[in-house]
Amino acid sequence: MKVYHLFSGGKDSSLAAWILSRLGYEVKLVTVTFGVLDAWKYARETAESLGFDHEVMELPRGMLERAAAMCIEDGRPGRAIQFLHERALETLAARRGVERISDGTRRDDRVPFLDLPKARSLEDRFNVAYIRPLLGLGHRTIRELVEKLFLVEIRESEEIKKSDYEVELRHILRELGHDPARIFPKRHLQSRVLGWR
Amino acid sequence: MKVYHLFSGGKDSSLAAWILSRLGYEVKLVTVTFGVLDAWKYARETAESLGFDHEVMELPRGMLERAAAMCIEDGRPGRAIQFLHERALETLAARRGVERISDGTRRDDRVPFLDLPKARSLEDRFNVAYIRPLLGLGHRTIRELVEKLFLVEIRESEEIKKSDYEVELRHILRELGHDPARIFPKRHLQSRVLGWR
Repeated sequence: MKVYHLFSGGKDSSLAAWILSRLGYEVKLVTVTFGVLDAWKYARETAESLGFDHEVMELPRGMLERAAAMCIEDGRPGRAIQFLHERALETLAARRGVERISDGTRRDDRVPFLDLPKARSLEDRFNVAYIRPLLGLGHRTIRELVEKLFLVEIRESEEIKKSDYEVELRHILRELGHDPARIFPKRHLQSRVLGWR
Repeated sequence: MKVYHLFSGGKDSSLAAWILSRLGYEVKLVTVTFGVLDAWKYARETAESLGFDHEVMELPRGMLERAAAMCIEDGRPGRAIQFLHERALETLAARRGVERISDGTRRDDRVPFLDLPKARSLEDRFNVAYIRPLLGLGHRTIRELVEKLFLVEIRESEEIKKSDYEVELRHILRELGHDPARIFPKRHLQSRVLGWR
Protein backbone atom coordinates (compact mmCIF):
# COMPACT_ATOMS: atom_id res chain seq x y z
CA MET A 1 0.00 0.00 0.00
CA LYS A 2 2.14 2.82 -1.34
CA VAL A 3 1.12 6.41 -0.57
CA TYR A 4 2.67 9.57 -2.09
CA HIS A 5 2.68 12.26 0.57
CA LEU A 6 3.28 15.98 -0.06
CA PHE A 7 6.03 16.95 2.33
CA SER A 8 7.54 20.30 3.31
CA GLY A 9 9.68 19.26 6.28
CA GLY A 10 7.31 21.06 8.66
CA LYS A 11 5.66 19.47 11.67
CA ASP A 12 2.26 18.92 10.08
CA SER A 13 3.48 17.02 7.04
CA SER A 14 5.97 15.12 9.20
CA LEU A 15 3.28 14.08 11.67
CA ALA A 16 0.99 13.00 8.83
CA ALA A 17 3.84 10.91 7.36
CA TRP A 18 4.39 9.22 10.71
CA ILE A 19 0.66 8.41 11.03
CA LEU A 20 0.61 6.90 7.53
CA SER A 21 3.58 4.70 8.39
CA ARG A 22 1.88 3.58 11.63
CA LEU A 23 -1.18 2.55 9.60
CA GLY A 24 0.98 0.24 7.53
CA TYR A 25 1.46 2.38 4.43
CA GLU A 26 4.71 2.46 2.49
CA VAL A 27 5.28 6.22 2.58
CA LYS A 28 6.94 8.08 -0.31
CA LEU A 29 7.59 11.73 0.57
CA VAL A 30 7.29 14.21 -2.29
CA THR A 31 8.48 17.82 -2.11
CA VAL A 32 7.37 20.35 -4.70
CA THR A 33 9.71 22.79 -6.37
CA PHE A 34 9.20 25.26 -9.22
CA GLY A 35 12.88 25.19 -10.06
CA VAL A 36 13.51 28.69 -8.71
CA LEU A 37 15.37 27.79 -5.51
CA ASP A 38 16.79 24.61 -4.05
CA ALA A 39 14.78 24.95 -0.85
CA TRP A 40 13.59 21.35 -1.36
CA LYS A 41 16.94 20.29 0.13
CA TYR A 42 15.71 21.15 3.64
CA ALA A 43 12.78 18.78 3.24
CA ARG A 44 15.19 16.14 1.99
CA GLU A 45 17.34 16.60 5.13
CA THR A 46 14.28 16.13 7.32
CA ALA A 47 13.11 13.12 5.29
CA GLU A 48 16.52 11.48 5.63
CA SER A 49 16.70 12.24 9.30
CA LEU A 50 13.27 10.60 9.77
CA GLY A 51 14.20 7.66 7.55
CA PHE A 52 11.58 8.12 4.83
CA ASP A 53 12.03 7.79 1.06
CA HIS A 54 12.00 11.23 -0.54
CA GLU A 55 11.73 12.67 -4.03
CA VAL A 56 11.44 16.12 -5.54
CA MET A 57 8.62 16.90 -7.99
CA GLU A 58 9.24 19.88 -10.25
CA LEU A 59 6.21 21.87 -11.33
CA PRO A 60 6.29 24.49 -14.12
CA ARG A 61 7.69 27.90 -13.18
CA GLY A 62 4.66 29.39 -14.94
CA MET A 63 2.43 28.04 -12.11
CA LEU A 64 4.48 29.94 -9.56
CA GLU A 65 4.33 33.09 -11.67
CA ARG A 66 0.54 32.78 -11.87
CA ALA A 67 0.43 32.37 -8.10
CA ALA A 68 2.65 35.44 -7.66
CA ALA A 69 0.23 37.44 -9.83
CA MET A 70 -2.61 36.33 -7.52
CA CYS A 71 -0.61 37.50 -4.48
CA ILE A 72 -0.02 40.91 -6.05
CA GLU A 73 -3.66 41.27 -7.10
CA ASP A 74 -5.05 40.20 -3.72
CA GLY A 75 -2.41 41.75 -1.44
CA ARG A 76 -2.43 38.47 0.50
CA PRO A 77 -1.25 34.94 -0.24
CA GLY A 78 -4.31 32.75 0.48
CA ARG A 79 -5.64 32.22 -3.05
CA ALA A 80 -2.14 31.64 -4.45
CA ILE A 81 -1.24 29.01 -1.83
CA GLN A 82 -4.57 27.24 -2.43
CA PHE A 83 -3.96 27.33 -6.21
CA LEU A 84 -0.46 25.85 -5.88
CA HIS A 85 -1.56 23.11 -3.49
CA GLU A 86 -4.40 22.01 -5.76
CA ARG A 87 -2.04 21.89 -8.74
CA ALA A 88 0.51 19.90 -6.69
CA LEU A 89 -2.14 17.36 -5.63
CA GLU A 90 -3.41 17.02 -9.20
CA THR A 91 0.06 16.61 -10.67
CA LEU A 92 0.88 13.92 -8.12
CA ALA A 93 -2.47 12.18 -8.61
CA ALA A 94 -2.05 12.16 -12.39
CA ARG A 95 1.23 10.25 -12.28
CA ARG A 96 1.25 6.70 -13.58
CA GLY A 97 1.02 4.09 -10.84
CA VAL A 98 -0.11 6.52 -8.12
CA GLU A 99 -3.14 5.10 -6.28
CA ARG A 100 -2.97 7.02 -3.00
CA ILE A 101 -1.95 10.59 -2.28
CA SER A 102 -1.79 12.43 1.01
CA ASP A 103 -0.94 15.72 2.68
CA GLY A 104 -0.62 17.27 6.12
CA THR A 105 -3.59 19.64 5.94
CA ARG A 106 -5.51 20.08 9.18
CA ARG A 107 -9.05 20.54 10.36
CA ASP A 108 -8.26 24.10 11.43
CA ASP A 109 -6.42 25.17 8.27
CA ARG A 110 -7.96 27.83 6.05
CA VAL A 111 -5.48 27.45 3.17
CA PRO A 112 -4.45 25.24 1.67
CA PHE A 113 -7.57 23.18 2.23
CA LEU A 114 -9.86 21.08 0.04
CA ASP A 115 -13.49 21.07 1.10
CA LEU A 116 -15.45 17.83 0.76
CA PRO A 117 -16.66 18.39 -2.84
CA LYS A 118 -13.12 19.30 -3.94
CA ALA A 119 -11.61 16.29 -2.15
CA ARG A 120 -14.13 13.94 -3.76
CA SER A 121 -13.61 15.55 -7.17
CA LEU A 122 -9.85 15.02 -6.87
CA GLU A 123 -10.40 11.34 -6.01
CA ASP A 124 -12.89 10.83 -8.84
CA ARG A 125 -11.05 12.70 -11.58
CA PHE A 126 -7.76 10.90 -10.97
CA ASN A 127 -9.04 7.61 -9.54
CA VAL A 128 -6.93 7.93 -6.39
CA ALA A 129 -7.58 7.82 -2.65
CA TYR A 130 -6.82 11.17 -0.98
CA ILE A 131 -5.78 10.64 2.64
CA ARG A 132 -5.49 13.46 5.18
CA PRO A 133 -4.26 11.90 8.43
CA LEU A 134 -4.53 15.18 10.40
CA LEU A 135 -8.03 16.16 9.35
CA GLY A 136 -9.72 14.69 12.41
CA LEU A 137 -7.21 16.10 14.92
CA GLY A 138 -7.49 19.44 16.71
CA HIS A 139 -4.51 21.66 17.50
CA ARG A 140 -4.17 20.22 20.99
CA THR A 141 -3.85 16.65 19.72
CA ILE A 142 -1.39 17.68 17.02
CA ARG A 143 0.77 19.58 19.51
CA GLU A 144 0.75 16.62 21.90
CA LEU A 145 1.88 14.15 19.24
CA VAL A 146 4.46 16.49 17.69
CA GLU A 147 6.02 17.17 21.10
CA LYS A 148 6.18 13.46 21.81
CA LEU A 149 7.74 12.55 18.48
CA PHE A 150 9.89 15.29 16.99
CA LEU A 151 12.71 17.73 17.56
CA VAL A 152 11.31 20.92 16.07
CA GLU A 153 12.86 24.27 15.18
CA ILE A 154 10.43 27.22 15.22
CA ARG A 155 11.32 30.49 13.52
CA GLU A 156 9.96 33.39 11.50
CA SER A 157 8.88 32.37 8.00
CA GLU A 158 11.61 34.49 6.41
CA GLU A 159 14.37 32.75 8.33
CA ILE A 160 13.39 29.11 8.41
CA LYS A 161 14.98 26.52 6.17
CA LYS A 162 11.76 25.15 4.76
CA SER A 163 10.53 23.72 1.52
CA ASP A 164 6.95 24.93 1.25
CA TYR A 165 5.37 26.99 -1.52
CA GLU A 166 5.95 30.20 0.43
CA VAL A 167 9.74 30.16 0.06
CA GLU A 168 9.75 30.24 -3.74
CA LEU A 169 6.70 32.49 -3.83
CA ARG A 170 8.48 35.09 -1.68
CA HIS A 171 11.54 34.85 -3.91
CA ILE A 172 9.66 35.39 -7.16
CA LEU A 173 7.69 38.28 -5.66
CA ARG A 174 11.00 39.95 -4.82
CA GLU A 175 12.20 39.31 -8.38
CA LEU A 176 9.06 41.02 -9.65
CA GLY A 177 9.83 44.05 -7.48
CA HIS A 178 7.23 43.37 -4.78
CA ASP A 179 8.01 43.22 -1.07
CA PRO A 180 6.77 39.83 0.28
CA ALA A 181 6.53 41.40 3.74
CA ARG A 182 3.56 43.44 2.47
CA ILE A 183 1.78 40.28 1.30
CA PHE A 184 2.57 37.63 3.91
CA PRO A 185 1.50 38.10 7.54
CA LYS A 186 4.11 39.95 9.62
CA ARG A 187 4.67 37.56 12.47
CA HIS A 188 4.30 34.14 11.02
CA LEU A 189 6.11 31.44 12.95
CA GLN A 190 6.86 28.32 10.98
CA SER A 191 8.25 25.01 12.06
CA ARG A 192 10.83 22.64 10.71
CA VAL A 193 11.33 19.11 11.95
CA LEU A 194 14.96 18.24 12.68
CA GLY A 195 14.50 14.57 13.60
CA TRP A 196 12.97 12.11 16.03
CA ARG A 197 12.97 13.01 19.70
CA MET B 1 -2.51 9.42 26.83
CA LYS B 2 -5.93 7.93 27.59
CA VAL B 3 -8.71 8.41 25.06
CA TYR B 4 -12.40 7.52 25.56
CA HIS B 5 -13.79 6.29 22.27
CA LEU B 6 -17.49 5.90 21.46
CA PHE B 7 -17.86 2.35 20.18
CA SER B 8 -20.72 0.46 18.56
CA GLY B 9 -18.91 -2.68 17.43
CA GLY B 10 -19.25 -1.62 13.79
CA LYS B 11 -16.36 -1.33 11.34
CA ASP B 12 -15.99 2.44 11.53
CA SER B 13 -15.66 2.69 15.29
CA SER B 14 -13.46 -0.44 15.32
CA LEU B 15 -11.12 1.00 12.68
CA ALA B 16 -10.94 4.31 14.54
CA ALA B 17 -10.05 2.42 17.76
CA TRP B 18 -7.27 0.58 15.95
CA ILE B 19 -5.86 3.84 14.56
CA LEU B 20 -5.88 5.41 18.04
CA SER B 21 -3.99 2.44 19.44
CA ARG B 22 -1.44 2.66 16.58
CA LEU B 23 -0.86 6.32 17.47
CA GLY B 24 0.10 5.31 20.99
CA TYR B 25 -3.13 6.12 22.81
CA GLU B 26 -4.47 3.99 25.64
CA VAL B 27 -7.92 3.30 24.21
CA LYS B 28 -11.00 2.95 26.43
CA LEU B 29 -14.05 1.88 24.43
CA VAL B 30 -17.38 3.27 25.60
CA THR B 31 -20.75 1.98 24.41
CA VAL B 32 -23.90 3.99 25.02
CA THR B 33 -27.15 2.51 26.29
CA PHE B 34 -30.42 4.07 27.36
CA GLY B 35 -31.24 1.11 29.53
CA VAL B 36 -33.98 -0.15 27.20
CA LEU B 37 -32.18 -3.16 25.72
CA ASP B 38 -28.93 -4.96 26.42
CA ALA B 39 -27.67 -4.49 22.85
CA TRP B 40 -24.43 -3.08 24.33
CA LYS B 41 -23.37 -6.69 24.90
CA TYR B 42 -22.57 -7.09 21.17
CA ALA B 43 -20.14 -4.18 21.34
CA ARG B 44 -18.61 -5.76 24.43
CA GLU B 45 -18.12 -9.04 22.54
CA THR B 46 -16.35 -7.19 19.72
CA ALA B 47 -14.26 -5.16 22.18
CA GLU B 48 -13.17 -8.35 23.96
CA SER B 49 -12.42 -10.08 20.72
CA LEU B 50 -10.23 -7.12 19.67
CA GLY B 51 -8.58 -6.90 23.09
CA PHE B 52 -9.69 -3.40 24.08
CA ASP B 53 -10.96 -2.21 27.47
CA HIS B 54 -14.70 -1.63 27.31
CA GLU B 55 -17.34 0.04 29.42
CA VAL B 56 -21.03 0.81 29.10
CA MET B 57 -22.27 4.37 29.64
CA GLU B 58 -25.95 4.66 30.48
CA LEU B 59 -27.75 7.80 29.30
CA PRO B 60 -31.23 8.81 30.51
CA ARG B 61 -34.14 7.02 28.86
CA GLY B 62 -35.72 10.46 28.45
CA MET B 63 -33.08 11.34 25.84
CA LEU B 64 -34.09 8.34 23.77
CA GLU B 65 -37.77 9.27 24.11
CA ARG B 66 -36.99 12.78 22.91
CA ALA B 67 -35.10 11.31 19.96
CA ALA B 68 -38.05 9.01 19.18
CA ALA B 69 -40.36 12.03 19.15
CA MET B 70 -38.01 13.68 16.61
CA CYS B 71 -38.18 10.56 14.42
CA ILE B 72 -41.98 10.56 14.52
CA GLU B 73 -42.18 14.29 13.78
CA ASP B 74 -39.66 14.16 10.91
CA GLY B 75 -40.55 10.76 9.46
CA ARG B 76 -36.79 10.07 9.24
CA PRO B 77 -34.07 9.43 11.81
CA GLY B 78 -31.34 11.97 10.92
CA ARG B 79 -32.05 14.68 13.49
CA ALA B 80 -32.61 12.11 16.25
CA ILE B 81 -29.33 10.28 15.58
CA GLN B 82 -27.47 13.60 15.51
CA PHE B 83 -29.13 14.65 18.79
CA LEU B 84 -28.19 11.39 20.54
CA HIS B 85 -24.60 11.47 19.31
CA GLU B 86 -24.07 15.05 20.49
CA ARG B 87 -25.49 14.18 23.92
CA ALA B 88 -23.26 11.07 24.09
CA LEU B 89 -20.14 13.10 23.25
CA GLU B 90 -21.07 15.78 25.79
CA THR B 91 -21.79 13.27 28.53
CA LEU B 92 -18.47 11.55 27.92
CA ALA B 93 -16.58 14.85 27.71
CA ALA B 94 -18.11 16.06 30.99
CA ARG B 95 -16.83 13.10 33.00
CA ARG B 96 -14.15 13.76 35.57
CA GLY B 97 -10.66 12.91 34.34
CA VAL B 98 -11.62 12.69 30.67
CA GLU B 99 -9.15 14.72 28.56
CA ARG B 100 -9.62 13.11 25.13
CA ILE B 101 -12.71 11.75 23.45
CA SER B 102 -13.10 10.16 20.06
CA ASP B 103 -15.54 8.55 17.66
CA GLY B 104 -15.64 6.76 14.32
CA THR B 105 -17.42 9.44 12.28
CA ARG B 106 -16.23 9.82 8.69
CA ARG B 107 -15.66 12.50 6.12
CA ASP B 108 -18.57 11.20 4.07
CA ASP B 109 -21.09 10.84 6.92
CA ARG B 110 -24.13 13.06 7.01
CA VAL B 111 -25.29 12.05 10.50
CA PRO B 112 -24.04 11.83 13.08
CA PHE B 113 -21.49 14.49 12.23
CA LEU B 114 -20.12 17.56 14.01
CA ASP B 115 -19.14 20.41 11.69
CA LEU B 116 -16.05 22.43 12.57
CA PRO B 117 -17.79 25.05 14.78
CA LYS B 118 -19.58 22.28 16.69
CA ALA B 119 -16.37 20.26 17.10
CA ARG B 120 -14.51 23.30 18.42
CA SER B 121 -17.39 24.19 20.70
CA LEU B 122 -17.35 20.69 22.18
CA GLU B 123 -13.60 20.95 22.83
CA ASP B 124 -13.88 24.42 24.35
CA ARG B 125 -16.93 23.86 26.54
CA PHE B 126 -15.57 20.67 28.10
CA ASN B 127 -11.83 21.35 27.81
CA VAL B 128 -11.18 18.10 25.95
CA ALA B 129 -9.51 17.11 22.70
CA TYR B 130 -12.00 15.59 20.23
CA ILE B 131 -10.24 13.14 17.91
CA ARG B 132 -11.82 11.70 14.75
CA PRO B 133 -9.31 9.27 13.25
CA LEU B 134 -11.45 8.56 10.16
CA LEU B 135 -12.23 12.16 9.20
CA GLY B 136 -9.43 12.44 6.66
CA LEU B 137 -10.09 9.07 5.02
CA GLY B 138 -12.38 8.44 2.05
CA HIS B 139 -14.53 5.32 1.65
CA ARG B 140 -11.89 3.59 -0.47
CA THR B 141 -9.20 3.96 2.20
CA ILE B 142 -11.58 2.85 4.95
CA ARG B 143 -12.63 -0.23 2.97
CA GLU B 144 -9.01 -1.11 2.26
CA LEU B 145 -7.99 -0.92 5.93
CA VAL B 146 -11.12 -2.69 7.22
CA GLU B 147 -10.61 -5.57 4.78
CA LYS B 148 -6.99 -5.91 5.83
CA LEU B 149 -7.74 -5.86 9.54
CA PHE B 150 -11.12 -7.27 10.48
CA LEU B 151 -13.52 -10.16 10.08
CA VAL B 152 -16.79 -8.36 9.39
CA GLU B 153 -20.41 -9.48 9.32
CA ILE B 154 -22.70 -7.40 7.10
CA ARG B 155 -26.48 -7.61 7.43
CA GLU B 156 -29.68 -5.61 7.32
CA SER B 157 -29.98 -3.12 10.21
CA GLU B 158 -32.95 -4.99 11.66
CA GLU B 159 -31.03 -8.25 11.93
CA ILE B 160 -27.55 -7.27 13.02
CA LYS B 161 -26.32 -7.67 16.56
CA LYS B 162 -25.15 -4.12 17.02
CA SER B 163 -24.97 -1.58 19.78
CA ASP B 164 -25.63 1.72 18.07
CA TYR B 165 -28.37 4.24 18.83
CA GLU B 166 -30.58 2.79 16.12
CA VAL B 167 -31.27 -0.48 17.93
CA GLU B 168 -32.86 1.10 21.00
CA LEU B 169 -34.46 3.82 18.91
CA ARG B 170 -36.26 1.21 16.77
CA HIS B 171 -37.36 -0.60 19.92
CA ILE B 172 -38.85 2.44 21.60
CA LEU B 173 -40.59 3.49 18.37
CA ARG B 174 -42.27 0.09 18.30
CA GLU B 175 -43.27 0.54 21.95
CA LEU B 176 -44.86 3.86 21.02
CA GLY B 177 -46.87 2.13 18.28
CA HIS B 178 -44.78 3.38 15.33
CA ASP B 179 -43.31 1.11 12.67
CA PRO B 180 -39.52 1.77 12.51
CA ALA B 181 -39.55 0.47 8.91
CA ARG B 182 -41.45 3.63 7.93
CA ILE B 183 -38.78 5.85 9.51
CA PHE B 184 -35.47 4.12 8.82
CA PRO B 185 -34.26 3.54 5.24
CA LYS B 186 -35.52 0.25 3.77
CA ARG B 187 -32.28 -1.36 2.68
CA HIS B 188 -29.71 -0.29 5.18
CA LEU B 189 -26.78 -2.66 5.46
CA GLN B 190 -24.84 -2.40 8.66
CA SER B 191 -21.62 -4.02 9.74
CA ARG B 192 -20.39 -5.71 12.86
CA VAL B 193 -16.79 -6.57 13.52
CA LEU B 194 -16.26 -10.14 14.74
CA GLY B 195 -12.50 -9.98 15.35
CA TRP B 196 -9.07 -9.54 13.80
CA ARG B 197 -8.44 -11.12 10.44
